Amino acid sequence: YGVATLDDATSIRQAVVDEKPRRAVVLGGGYIGVEMAEMLLERGLAVTVVLADPLPLALLDEDMGERVCAAMTSMGIEVVTCAPVKEVETADGRVRRVVTEAGGYDADIVVLGLGVRPDADLGRDAGLEAGDSGGLVVDERQACLFQDQVWAAGDCTETTHRLTGKRLSIALGTHANRQGRIAGTNIGGGTATFPGVLGTAITKVGDCEIGRTGLSSREIEKAGFTAESTTVESSTRAGYYPGAASIVTKLLHERDTGRLLGAQIVGGPGSAKRIDVFAAALWNQMTVADIAGMDLSYAPPFSPTMDPVTITARKAARA
Amino acid sequence: YGVATLDDATSIRQAVVDEKPRRAVVLGGGYIGVEMAEMLLERGLAVTVVLADPLPLALLDEDMGERVCAAMTSMGIEVVTCAPVKEVETADGRVRRVVTEAGGYDADIVVLGLGVRPDADLGRDAGLEAGDSGGLVVDERQACLFQDQVWAAGDCTETTHRLTGKRLSIALGTHANRQGRIAGTNIGGGTATFPGVLGTAITKVGDCEIGRTGLSSREIEKAGFTAESTTVESSTRAGYYPGAASIVTKLLHERDTGRLLGAQIVGGPGSAKRIDVFAAALWNQMTVADIAGMDLSYAPPFSPTMDPVTITARKAARA
Repeated sequence: YGVATLDDATSIRQAVVDEKPRRAVVLGGGYIGVEMAEMLLERGLAVTVVLADPLPLALLDEDMGERVCAAMTSMGIEVVTCAPVKEVETADGRVRRVVTEAGGYDADIVVLGLGVRPDADLGRDAGLEAGDSGGLVVDERQACLFQDQVWAAGDCTETTHRLTGKRLSIALGTHANRQGRIAGTNIGGGTATFPGVLGTAITKVGDCEIGRTGLSSREIEKAGFTAESTTVESSTRAGYYPGAASIVTKLLHERDTGRLLGAQIVGGPGSAKRIDVFAAALWNQMTVADIAGMDLSYAPPFSPTMDPVTITARKAARA
Repeated sequence: YGVATLDDATSIRQAVVDEKPRRAVVLGGGYIGVEMAEMLLERGLAVTVVLADPLPLALLDEDMGERVCAAMTSMGIEVVTCAPVKEVETADGRVRRVVTEAGGYDADIVVLGLGVRPDADLGRDAGLEAGDSGGLVVDERQACLFQDQVWAAGDCTETTHRLTGKRLSIALGTHANRQGRIAGTNIGGGTATFPGVLGTAITKVGDCEIGRTGLSSREIEKAGFTAESTTVESSTRAGYYPGAASIVTKLLHERDTGRLLGAQIVGGPGSAKRIDVFAAALWNQMTVADIAGMDLSYAPPFSPTMDPVTITARKAARA
C-alpha cells in the first residue's frame, strides 16, 4: 500500500479491518512512515519500520532523530535501520516477507512511505521550466517562467528557502495552500507574492512530538554557514505541575553573528508547537540573544518560569 | 485568605482539608481569583467569584472576557459581576457571609484575589525614586535613579512597555526572573540591559485557556493609537482530528500601518501558548500581513492547515 491519497488511507484501514493482518512492515521513516507505524500499532498490529537510512526523520539532526527512534522503540515499534530493501516476497498474491540487506521481516501487510517527488510531467510536457528538484520553476507571483499566463502552485513546484535563497521542493499542505492563494490572486488580476519558506514541519509518534524549522546541521554545512549548536532538556510545564513532560530543544546559530539558523524540538505533549516561535524568530532574522529577551508567556500549566524557547536561546547566546 | 506566598496556598489547602468548607467565595477575578476558583471547585466546593468589575480578567477586551465568564459558568462556578464588596460578616471568629452592593453570599471560606501593588517602601524610605504606579524607577540596567550602586528588580519596580514606551508595574514571575539576572550581571561587573515587556500573560480555568500580549483595546485607546479589530473562531487541530477544540483569536492592529498592537486568545486545550507567536511578532514590529505570510507548522494533531495565528492575521490583513 502506498499512501498518497485519502483513498489509499481508506484502503489500508479496510485491509486492516477485513483481513486482520498481524504483522505490518512500514518501508520508510519520514513523516508518512512514522505516522503509519503509529496508526498500525494503535490498531493492534506488530509493526516493524524498515529504513535505508541510519535513523528515522532524516530532516532532523542525528542526535534528535535518535530520540525519536528511542521513543518509537519504547512504544513497541521495531525500528530496523541501514536496511535497504531488496525484495518483497509474495505468495498466493499476498505479501509474505520483506527482504532487506540486513535480513528478512515477515509481513501480512506492507505500507510504503518512501518519500515524494514533484509530479510535474504535465507542465514539463507543455514546455515549462523545471528545476533540479524536478519541480516547476515559478517566480514569487507563482507564475511559470517563459510562459505568459501560466501559473503553478503546490507539490509540483519549487519554492525559495528564505535562509539559503536556494530553490527546493517541499511537499507540504501549508505551502500548497498558501501558494494556491497567491496564484489565484494574481490570476484574478490582483497582486500577491509568496515570501518563501523556512522548512517548518511538525509531527508526532505516540506521545513524542517533533518539530523543526530552518536548516538542519547537514543543510547548514551544505549552505556554507558556520554554526554553533545548543541542546537543552527542560520541561513542558513547571516541574511540579501535573503532566509536565521532558522537552529537548536544539538550536543552531551562526557563529559570527548569533543569528538563528535552525531549531529542532523532540518532547512530550505540548512540545512541538513551540517550533512556531522559532519560525517567527527565523522569519525576522533574530539572533539567539534577541530570542532570549522576548517576553514570552508563563504560567505553571504551560511552561517553566522561563519557557524552553527562552532557556535554550539564553544558553545559545552564551555559547 | 490572601494569596501572596506559597505558605498562603498551603494554609488554604489545609483549611479545605481540615475544616471541610462547602461554600467558597473568591473576591476578585484576575489570574489569582480565577485560578483559586478552579482549585476550590476541583476540591468539591461550591464556588462564587465576586467581582467589582463587569467581567473577570480585565486585561482582556470585554468580548473575550465574556467568553471566559461563560466558560467559568459552564464549569459550575457562579460569577457575580458589578458587585463591590461592602462587608465580610463573621460569627464565632469565622467568615459566614460576603455582603456586596448586589446582594449577600454565604461563605465558609473567603479567598482574596484583589490585585497587587508594588511593595517598594524599603526603597522609597531609603530615598529611591518611585513612579506613578508606586514601583521603583530603574534604568534599562535595572539601576535605581540618582543612587549610585543601588539596583532593583521584580514586582517592586517599574518596567518599560515596548509598544507605548511608558513605564508601568506588571507583577509577573518571568519579568522578575529576567530583571534579576540583568541586575545581577551588572552588579557583578558585566553589562546587560532589560529590553522591556509586552504584557504577555497566560492562564487557564478548567479546559478554557487564556492568553494575551501587547495592548488591549482599552490600552490602545489610552496610548492614542487607532486600531482595527479582528476576531476569528477556528480550531486547535484539524476539524476531523480527535480532540479538536474551539479557539477564538482576536488581533488589534494599527489602522494606518497594519502593525500588530495586541493579541488575545480564549480557547480549549492547546490554545493559549500560541500567544507566544504573536509576542514574537510584536517584538519584531510585524504587520498583520507579515504575520499571515510566516511559515508556521502544520499537522492534523496540532492545527488546521492554516494555523489559527495565520487565519486571524490573514483576515486582519484584509480588514
